Amino acid sequence: MKSFKGRDIIDINDFSKEELLFILKTAKKFDPAFVKKDRSNYTLAQGKIAAVLFFEQSTRTEQSFRSAAQKIGMGIIGFNDPESTSIHKGESFSDTIRIMDSYADVLIIRHPRAGAAKEAADVAQIPVINAGDGPNQHPTQTMLDLYTMMKEAGPAPDGARAGKLDGITVALMGDLKYGRTVHALSIALSHFNVKQIFISHPSLAMPDEYLKILKEKKREFKVWDKLPEDLKGVDFLYQTRVQKERFINLSQYKKIKDKFILDASFKEYLDKGVKLMHPLPRVNEMDSSLDAHPNAIYFQQARNGLYIREALLSLVLGRL
Amino acid sequence: MKSFKGRDIIDINDFSKEELLFILKTAKKFDPAFVKKDRSNYTLAQGKIAAVLFFEQSTRTEQSFRSAAQKIGMGIIGFNDPESTSIHKGESFSDTIRIMDSYADVLIIRHPRAGAAKEAADVAQIPVINAGDGPNQHPTQTMLDLYTMMKEAGPAPDGARAGKLDGITVALMGDLKYGRTVHALSIALSHFNVKQIFISHPSLAMPDEYLKILKEKKREFKVWDKLPEDLKGVDFLYQTRVQKERFINLSQYKKIKDKFILDASFKEYLDKGVKLMHPLPRVNEMDSSLDAHPNAIYFQQARNGLYIREALLSLVLGRL
Amino acid sequence: MKSFKGRDIIDINDFSKEELLFILKTAKKFDPAFVKKDRSNYTLAQGKIAAVLFFEQSTRTEQSFRSAAQKIGMGIIGFNDPESTSIHKGESFSDTIRIMDSYADVLIIRHPRAGAAKEAADVAQIPVINAGDGPNQHPTQTMLDLYTMMKEAGPAPDGARAGKLDGITVALMGDLKYGRTVHALSIALSHFNVKQIFISHPSLAMPDEYLKILKEKKREFKVWDKLPEDLKGVDFLYQTRVQKERFINLSQYKKIKDKFILDASFKEYLDKGVKLMHPLPRVNEMDSSLDAHPNAIYFQQARNGLYIREALLSLVLGRL
Repeated sequence: MKSFKGRDIIDINDFSKEELLFILKTAKKFDPAFVKKDRSNYTLAQGKIAAVLFFEQSTRTEQSFRSAAQKIGMGIIGFNDPESTSIHKGESFSDTIRIMDSYADVLIIRHPRAGAAKEAADVAQIPVINAGDGPNQHPTQTMLDLYTMMKEAGPAPDGARAGKLDGITVALMGDLKYGRTVHALSIALSHFNVKQIFISHPSLAMPDEYLKILKEKKREFKVWDKLPEDLKGVDFLYQTRVQKERFINLSQYKKIKDKFILDASFKEYLDKGVKLMHPLPRVNEMDSSLDAHPNAIYFQQARNGLYIREALLSLVLGRL
Repeated sequence: MKSFKGRDIIDINDFSKEELLFILKTAKKFDPAFVKKDRSNYTLAQGKIAAVLFFEQSTRTEQSFRSAAQKIGMGIIGFNDPESTSIHKGESFSDTIRIMDSYADVLIIRHPRAGAAKEAADVAQIPVINAGDGPNQHPTQTMLDLYTMMKEAGPAPDGARAGKLDGITVALMGDLKYGRTVHALSIALSHFNVKQIFISHPSLAMPDEYLKILKEKKREFKVWDKLPEDLKGVDFLYQTRVQKERFINLSQYKKIKDKFILDASFKEYLDKGVKLMHPLPRVNEMDSSLDAHPNAIYFQQARNGLYIREALLSLVLGRL
Repeated sequence: MKSFKGRDIIDINDFSKEELLFILKTAKKFDPAFVKKDRSNYTLAQGKIAAVLFFEQSTRTEQSFRSAAQKIGMGIIGFNDPESTSIHKGESFSDTIRIMDSYADVLIIRHPRAGAAKEAADVAQIPVINAGDGPNQHPTQTMLDLYTMMKEAGPAPDGARAGKLDGITVALMGDLKYGRTVHALSIALSHFNVKQIFISHPSLAMPDEYLKILKEKKREFKVWDKLPEDLKGVDFLYQTRVQKERFINLSQYKKIKDKFILDASFKEYLDKGVKLMHPLPRVNEMDSSLDAHPNAIYFQQARNGLYIREALLSLVLGRL
């Protein structure tokens, strides 16, 4: 396995199954569920600087990275409003990246343009972490989703499955056509013996290219156009928002957005053991009465993002 | 006395006299006036994260909290422009709080709506500190005001009073009707044997409900409609700004705003020992020629906010 | 030499040759080119707070100061959008400075008005560092330029000159009339036995007052109105942007801005050993094909700003 020191984290497809498992295992070192409380991670990267460059706003991802970096002792520079940068003086993207490269030890970049993170990695000498490049990739989201499933997978009837991805069933629901999150997650899950179920309105169905990958890898999957009365055997239902900002046709958005919403009656499924995940933010995809249920695990999922990001930052800085 | 570890700091009325005194005593541990210079407070909360969530702007309070948190070793996440958060994607207030709750160890919240800090505390698992919720509460301001009076109280004629609140006389002046600061301060001072004097235009007089509290507690107070020629016996004159943003009727604002301004002649009172306080920011409430006088203590007062906030953060994190 | 502890860094002219050399020497302690990798600078100023007050935006300078301060362990408060400060409530500049003074241990100020940094230093009790006050001064830029030249000066024919400023030849090009950067650099270089060459369109020529200083100090200099075919003997060509924001007459700006641009053919000069510097940001002053050349050192120059700023912060805090 290639060393992680100095590596760029751009695309989930750049990582082998072995590497993904290594990252998940490393994240456990930062998770109080697995380690003693007083472990002093805050000395790991003292004196190191993370440049957090958000060319579009994404509160949750930005705050999670800022928290993770500081939890391992790093300082933070950067911006979340590209209007406030030298770009308004006509500076090029690559000059901005090179300058930040010279002031920091790792770059964390969010950009509305697919490919921007890779471009940044090409000019930067320090490691670059992609925090989302438009409709393309958001690898740390995928990793925290995998981590959450691995951590929360209950024991199988034979008692052998707890804490493993192999053997689980994951249903992905909502916007499967435009949803970057579910595309990357599906591919990442295809490394494992995971059964995938795709639930959406036909106009937002999972694109064929992703189903083809599952066929090639001989992974079991199903395509449903509605939530069935029985979710028996489903370990995780991964709900996603129908994102207004990805639609060109607003009237189509309005027709579809309220389908596949989970109302209070979904509690019945949670009671039966289905665990509900969501990348957040959400608008009205789930009834808030579900939040209190122990199998509604989206806020734990968000918190797991901290451990993944602490792990990745430590790894690319060579501090583990 | 209830432990401070994990407690929310929402309302000054939640704290007993004993608890207030404990907080003031703890603040002294962070004040160079009382402790040796090299005390290393910056290790107290290393690895901990403060989420500083300002849903309205308040430079001074925000910067003071950020300074205090970092002085005890904390990292900082958060925002001061709610437009830049996921709220613009339609996310609810409680979801924003829960997410920040999952990324941080303490939440510091400023919000224009009364009750918002309490709402945040209800959904957050980590301690919440109210940094001002509209016209309602701003408990750390009140605590730093008490701390300043305790610290700066000179010896009484019998030499027994220095460093104590009991026995002092405090005059509150300016906007006593809408002024959240003076309302909370009056209540907090009512725990102590403090004589209170209320000086304002009748249309901005101290509301009866606060006078009633003083009557019930048998505290001495006076109501004046102008600054008298003699302030003999007054230890602290607490001047406040007539806040334009609290007025609905702008013509009334314009008539009143320039009354009760302290001009250069107030130096005479300062010379006689009256100490002048102000919560800041100020516009034209005092003549700037007064600033250099040793009894004009508003900038020391602001600095005392650091010690109160370092103390509170350390206490609610259980690090003292 | 006056101690640096507590000193304000306002104007490059406040520093003697001896003091400048001391600062450059101190900066080497923070430069991995000169010290062992693992030197733990991050403990130097732990618990200290830098207030980074940018009354106008300057991404690069702000980020460099923030990085430097955190690299020596400091916390950061401040703002880069004066609209977001209490100034919009009518607060005076000096009150804002005094409040920040009470929350921090050093102030770093950027302001569009010449003289603002000095005004801040007059009211602040803690050290103030000028990060640019309009058309006036930006002393840390000048220091990092000197540092870069000292560090990158190659050996003279007699082998005695490497790492020294004395004996080098520096050509300054672009906007020499309005360019604050080149004015301050010329004066700073005049402390040393440096030959200066001024290359510009006559309408943007170096003002006489700066040439006069060189004459008084008996320093050799030349004034050219174009880039000659031979730059023999020139060690550094310092290119600057013709800054649109300094022009009142836009049609004059448009006529001049594309003169004195370095195209791909400048590689020939670089090959012959001329080192190319630029304060950045740049727009189209150099062809990007030059960037890869080892003698195009503007990004190293930017990085050197970190070491200068770490050195200055440590010095004024008395931590070295």
